[in-house]
Amino acid sequence: MVIVNMILFEAMAGGGDFEELPLPPGLSQYEDYHTIDWQRDIARDRMRHRHIVKKKQDSICDLIKGAHDAWSGWLCLLLVGIAAGVVASVIDIGAGWMVDLREGICPQAFWLDRQQCCWASNETFFDTISGAHCSKWMPWSQLFTSNSAGAGATFVQFLFYVAFSVMFGALAAVLVKVFAPYACGSGITEIKTILSGFIIRGYLGKWTLLIKSVCLMLSVAAGLSLGKEGPLVHVACCIGNIFSYLFPKYGKNEAKKREILSAAAAAGVSVAFGAPIGGVLFSLEEVSYYFPLKTLWRSFFCALVAAFVLNTINPFGNQHSVLFYVEYNKPWMFVELIPFIGLGIIGGVIGSLFIKANIFWSRYRMRSKLGQYPVAEVLIVTLVTAILSFPNPYTRMSRSQLIYALFSQCGPADNHDLCDYKRNFTSVNLDMQLAEAGDGVYQALWQLPLALLFTLIATIFTFGIKVPAGLFIPSLAMGAIMGRIVGIAMEQVAYKNSESWIWQGECASNYCITPGLYAMVGAAATLGGVTRMTVSLVVIMFELTGGVRYIVPLMAAAMASKWVADALGKEGIYDAHIKLNGYPFLDSKEEYAHIALAADVMKPRNNEPLCVLTENSMTVAEVEDILKETDHNGFPVVVSKESQYLVGFVTRRELHLALENARQAVDGMTGDSLVVFGTSLPSPWDGPPPVKLKMILDMAPPTVTDHTPMETVIDMFRKLGIRHTLVTHNGRLLGVITKKDVLRHIETIKER
Amino acid sequence: MVIVNMILFEAMAGGGDFEELPLPPGLSQYEDYHTIDWQRDIARDRMRHRHIVKKKQDSICDLIKGAHDAWSGWLCLLLVGIAAGVVASVIDIGAGWMVDLREGICPQAFWLDRQQCCWASNETFFDTISGAHCSKWMPWSQLFTSNSAGAGATFVQFLFYVAFSVMFGALAAVLVKVFAPYACGSGITEIKTILSGFIIRGYLGKWTLLIKSVCLMLSVAAGLSLGKEGPLVHVACCIGNIFSYLFPKYGKNEAKKREILSAAAAAGVSVAFGAPIGGVLFSLEEVSYYFPLKTLWRSFFCALVAAFVLNTINPFGNQHSVLFYVEYNKPWMFVELIPFIGLGIIGGVIGSLFIKANIFWSRYRMRSKLGQYPVAEVLIVTLVTAILSFPNPYTRMSRSQLIYALFSQCGPADNHDLCDYKRNFTSVNLDMQLAEAGDGVYQALWQLPLALLFTLIATIFTFGIKVPAGLFIPSLAMGAIMGRIVGIAMEQVAYKNSESWIWQGECASNYCITPGLYAMVGAAATLGGVTRMTVSLVVIMFELTGGVRYIVPLMAAAMASKWVADALGKEGIYDAHIKLNGYPFLDSKEEYAHIALAADVMKPRNNEPLCVLTENSMTVAEVEDILKETDHNGFPVVVSKESQYLVGFVTRRELHLALENARQAVDGMTGDSLVVFGTSLPSPWDGPPPVKLKMILDMAPPTVTDHTPMETVIDMFRKLGIRHTLVTHNGRLLGVITKKDVLRHIETIKER
Repeated sequence: MVIVNMILFEAMAGGGDFEELPLPPGLSQYEDYHTIDWQRDIARDRMRHRHIVKKKQDSICDLIKGAHDAWSGWLCLLLVGIAAGVVASVIDIGAGWMVDLREGICPQAFWLDRQQCCWASNETFFDTISGAHCSKWMPWSQLFTSNSAGAGATFVQFLFYVAFSVMFGALAAVLVKVFAPYACGSGITEIKTILSGFIIRGYLGKWTLLIKSVCLMLSVAAGLSLGKEGPLVHVACCIGNIFSYLFPKYGKNEAKKREILSAAAAAGVSVAFGAPIGGVLFSLEEVSYYFPLKTLWRSFFCALVAAFVLNTINPFGNQHSVLFYVEYNKPWMFVELIPFIGLGIIGGVIGSLFIKANIFWSRYRMRSKLGQYPVAEVLIVTLVTAILSFPNPYTRMSRSQLIYALFSQCGPADNHDLCDYKRNFTSVNLDMQLAEAGDGVYQALWQLPLALLFTLIATIFTFGIKVPAGLFIPSLAMGAIMGRIVGIAMEQVAYKNSESWIWQGECASNYCITPGLYAMVGAAATLGGVTRMTVSLVVIMFELTGGVRYIVPLMAAAMASKWVADALGKEGIYDAHIKLNGYPFLDSKEEYAHIALAADVMKPRNNEPLCVLTENSMTVAEVEDILKETDHNGFPVVVSKESQYLVGFVTRRELHLALENARQAVDGMTGDSLVVFGTSLPSPWDGPPPVKLKMILDMAPPTVTDHTPMETVIDMFRKLGIRHTLVTHNGRLLGVITKKDVLRHIETIKER
Repeated sequence: MVIVNMILFEAMAGGGDFEELPLPPGLSQYEDYHTIDWQRDIARDRMRHRHIVKKKQDSICDLIKGAHDAWSGWLCLLLVGIAAGVVASVIDIGAGWMVDLREGICPQAFWLDRQQCCWASNETFFDTISGAHCSKWMPWSQLFTSNSAGAGATFVQFLFYVAFSVMFGALAAVLVKVFAPYACGSGITEIKTILSGFIIRGYLGKWTLLIKSVCLMLSVAAGLSLGKEGPLVHVACCIGNIFSYLFPKYGKNEAKKREILSAAAAAGVSVAFGAPIGGVLFSLEEVSYYFPLKTLWRSFFCALVAAFVLNTINPFGNQHSVLFYVEYNKPWMFVELIPFIGLGIIGGVIGSLFIKANIFWSRYRMRSKLGQYPVAEVLIVTLVTAILSFPNPYTRMSRSQLIYALFSQCGPADNHDLCDYKRNFTSVNLDMQLAEAGDGVYQALWQLPLALLFTLIATIFTFGIKVPAGLFIPSLAMGAIMGRIVGIAMEQVAYKNSESWIWQGECASNYCITPGLYAMVGAAATLGGVTRMTVSLVVIMFELTGGVRYIVPLMAAAMASKWVADALGKEGIYDAHIKLNGYPFLDSKEEYAHIALAADVMKPRNNEPLCVLTENSMTVAEVEDILKETDHNGFPVVVSKESQYLVGFVTRRELHLALENARQAVDGMTGDSLVVFGTSLPSPWDGPPPVKLKMILDMAPPTVTDHTPMETVIDMFRKLGIRHTLVTHNGRLLGVITKKDVLRHIETIKER
């Protein structure tokens, strides 16, 4: 597990200067697309820490260094939180401006979006849904046609809408393709894999950060059916990765760096939704792998700083700092649990359907020629989306505006379609009463299902194209539409039968059913069906409303949704994409029911020879032959080929480096020189000088016996973060189990 | 790790009936005060599960059984949640009634407490702090003296107050001593230990539940400086344990049972504070040990059900279902972070001081004769507490009322001491303005510090006496007093210098400082200092106020408090008590910096002989001698004493049982019979029939090499939940490391 040379270094270092002790070149690094050795990295960090603590008494300077080291985690996360908040604000403002640019412009100050333009004018507030706006804001039709209401004007609007959409989409696709191919998609799939210990160089680099941020604004503004919430997690992780390099404690230690990345992921969700607690739980539940409790507290800190900064910077947001702040003034009734659970079931079905269709299409893209023309694909999807979304007001407006409108309850001042009820307002202060639906609502009742269908299909084709694309918002939108429809139906049923015993008298005089709450429950259900989030989902939704009161409906729907979706297909969208991409991800949540023993999974089987090195009887030439002929990542070292008693383990990389070093360092070394991993030479010895490689021998490799159940072996892989384990019987080496063998074994079980 | 006979059973069972296969008698149970084998229990559960899944296709009945098995976790937690809610309600109502009984009675309906009595009368609401009340409620003085305001009346009140207190206290102490000694204390210490895998029989039994519930009411009503929140966690865990026996899946499997107990702990906090999310995080952060993510979701469900039931049953609570619901209408200013952090620092100091003093006194109690007279101790503490708390109104009222009063902001209708400001109310709707403190506030300013001092000293002596006693509430009370004092001071500073630039114009016309918020921040800080909770603390507090807005001050104070307290003493109160009691608890949060290797910690060292069994060359008599002469809990089995190649491991208990069984089962067995753990006999063999014990041999014991760093070994103990590991070198057995060796090693490091 922990390579022993670390201990040797420590022993050699004594009280001396740790930093002067050079690691053998390249020894502590990992190759791209390899898995890290958690135990080794953590041991390295503890040794570094021990060294700093020891030196602290030496001088003031060392004391300050020690203090800096103790604080560096917090400092790093403070910086990450601030940066995540700033970047999220920039993306928010930029995306808002570009979205409105498709509709019109603020002639006096083109850098303002519609809302800010109208605020500056002190005029009546614009209405998102009906499209009413103040006089300072100029729709393109008004600028380019004389008649701003006719068919010609609509056509001008349509042209600009489509043109801007396609332009933004094309720009995003080209930027991603040219500068940062890793910037596409939501990134959560890859971040899960990276946090589980995989190395993907450049995935969290500065180019990815820059391009992803810019293209995120562009792709949102292109009107594609995607959200910016998922990619914000990736953006935050990039920030975390970049800042971690300021602190060698984290930057130079892949395992420790993942603590920062976990916290950054929490900050990402925190700024996406304005839900710091939900963000931490999301990171814990969905994204992270190695999550010591110390990290929980730091993640919370980071998430909170990010939310606070975002809230401070963004002067145009509401004062509640959450994405969709809603407040309902009616409690829910017990009987409503039935439609809520119904929403959960539908949400689960939609989520499961979406995953299957999306995976089918993604697989088709990977295998067909389509995958070779990413820019063209983006262009086509953008064009079709733009053309089809224009006619329906509920698809034309931005998806977050749609969700907000669907979540809201109708106040006396709201006059858009969704709030078109036949009401007699005698006093504004009077409680809202149940009322008959007006024409606007009936119109919404056929436009909304169309919008739902459109969003579902569009998102299936969109999630996976080569621009930054998240699916929180489309999922929430689908669910909110579904929920609002059910909510309106329930409301009308209650209106028609307001005296019925079912309502227990609640509906006789009061406004008893809030369609907005149904929209929220539906949104939670669908998002749950797609991502299979549970606690974090409910907590995020709870933070949006800020009341314990609605946790029960949300929880009921989320549970129903998860159960139904799990019954239809075991994997959430992220796990499905991990599988599709073949990432080596060992899920720490799943439980496997298998009766296999380590002996059944290890390699070699069927009496094939096992490739081993011996402690002190192989020559350099033999070892180099083995290196050339095999592609194993490491080799067990045994006492002798006959006895097979296990001594230790060397990795291919270190063996290779050590032999190259030895060529320069050891005079007179030939191909016949012995490679010695132990301390003793076979005496008498009169050959060429031997090469001593005890330094690179890991004398504490993880071992299991051949009778160990695979459950235990998998537990060791997951919980100890090992990369391979050696299988022994009565002390003799029998074989090796690598992470890949484990993944393959799990795959076999699942298929059965 | 996993005993292999499980696998053998499976192989033998084939497609047959699993339930008919008897385990060897007593094999699956653990002895009292022993640690469980997590891996074995989990493997057993998966095997059971596999069996059920396999049988599901056989018949409808099996299908139902399968469905029941899948649901049983949820069902069990539903029942636990409901029961926890009901029990908590009963305790709430009972304790409230008894607390008021010390002051007076409701003559028309003696079963009503003061609040309910006054509600029934439709009169003006009583005031907790000034003691004003409605005419239906009779203080004892009014019943027994003619003049209800003079010194005589006060004396009567005093007498009744002290008499009832002592009576309740004595009753609680006697009940605990006679019926359920485990019902004393908060129980969180022991629950932490139990959840980490320790067995304490009866600690979560029905008698403990009953006595703890009753005595909890009594000890709260006795006016002792304690709270019922911590013990509620114990009560909920008892409920979890009892209900788990309804479902063999949990009741018969100690590892699985701990999943239920973790969720029950969450439910306990949930009903204590009305904070389901905080409860789950508390369980995750503070109490639980083995917490798979599946449990997170279930815990949340259980916590929510419990909170919902409590809220539904308790018709006299406020509609917000949290213990101290407060709503502040002023945001905090940035400059206020300074006093908030100051509160955090003081809170940390108080917490640390409290821990040290309490541990000192607890140790004294354990070592002196005092420990032998628990009832007398309770009586004395109760008497002194009652006498000293009567004169000061802030100690005389119940501690939760005190906390609520301190948290609240002063509305126009409040006329008690804490809200006695020199204000001119022109209109009730007008914003509250800063005002000069009146006499009442000045009186509070010297009564509150006395109350703080009294609570601190009383709690030091109270926490540890033999009645149910939690320290959430006393900690919160201390912090709230401290915070309110600072808050009032800040408020008066702001009033006197309302034009100062520090307030950035906020205080010129507005009511800018809320002393109640300071009380809340101080409470969080002190609780944090005492328990070292972090995330869960902030989340519980956040749920109490229900607004994201005040998370930043709470977090700042909690962080400052934790840092200061950690600097003064590393352990929280629960960990300190675990250490004091010597429980075998291996903390999963701490990180140890040690350079020892497995070889340095293992036993035997210094060339002492290792006690081993051989595979097939020891006689029954020899084995029995070893059993008699040593007290190890298990023995490694090696190929031969000379080679020491490791074969497996047998536990003492199983070896003992197997030999006894063999006496009956094997004809002709004598003391010279060979004990055979392998398959082959040394041939030729003509002695008495051998005893074959392959069944009980664990052929997959956890092993490490002698060069394995102790960090890795400790990680294996913590994450895999093993009880011992064998240490080998080149396949030869060198020694054993048990959990106790690890704990001793950690202790040595800490002392260094």
